[in-house]
Amino acid sequence: MKISRSSEDRPVQTAPGRERRVTNTDNLMMVIWDFTDGPAQEPDPYHSHPHEQVTYVAEGEVQFFIGEESSRLGPGDMVTVAPDQPHTVQPMTPRLRLIDSFTPLREEFL
Amino acid sequence: MKISRSSEDRPVQTAPGRERRVTNTDNLMMVIWDFTDGPAQEPDPYHSHPHEQVTYVAEGEVQFFIGEESSRLGPGDMVTVAPDQPHTVQPMTPRLRLIDSFTPLREEFL
Repeated sequence: MKISRSSEDRPVQTAPGRERRVTNTDNLMMVIWDFTDGPAQEPDPYHSHPHEQVTYVAEGEVQFFIGEESSRLGPGDMVTVAPDQPHTVQPMTPRLRLIDSFTPLREEFL
Repeated sequence: MKISRSSEDRPVQTAPGRERRVTNTDNLMMVIWDFTDGPAQEPDPYHSHPHEQVTYVAEGEVQFFIGEESSRLGPGDMVTVAPDQPHTVQPMTPRLRLIDSFTPLREEFL
């Protein structure tokens, strides 16, 4: 039983207004992303990775881009990203929390 | 891009006051569990599965049991469950939302 408590685990700041907290098992990773730099005027640069991804919107709204497609998502929505699909986000609200899950592990987040 | 919208996708009711919504890629599944039958006087029966699991508490509080251990978790907390570890939950609030991620897929949820 490995617990990551919001009250105890310090997030990693990846950029101003961007923080992440990570936990994982051997092949499964969950990442809490907190964005406090929105709303953004344009999307982040596209990125891709060989990992499968499912994202849950916990708070706020986001324009989610995958390839040529784009959709506005809000609390309770989920979206899947297949391996190697270019994707990105544009935070649409002052606060945004995304919960990303990945398999296999995003080793660069450990 | 596969989107599961909270406003459109009907959840599956698994028991009175228990609903789930599921999405997945080939090897990764995310499940939204909504409990509206809490607070519970005692935990659910233990269960286990060979899948790796990471759970995020989106709303409410839960007593989370893994083997002999138990911990009270609240919004923003995450907990990991290794394969075949007996575990269960006891909802501690009238409303509880857990976000479970699994690899491989829980085929019985599809």
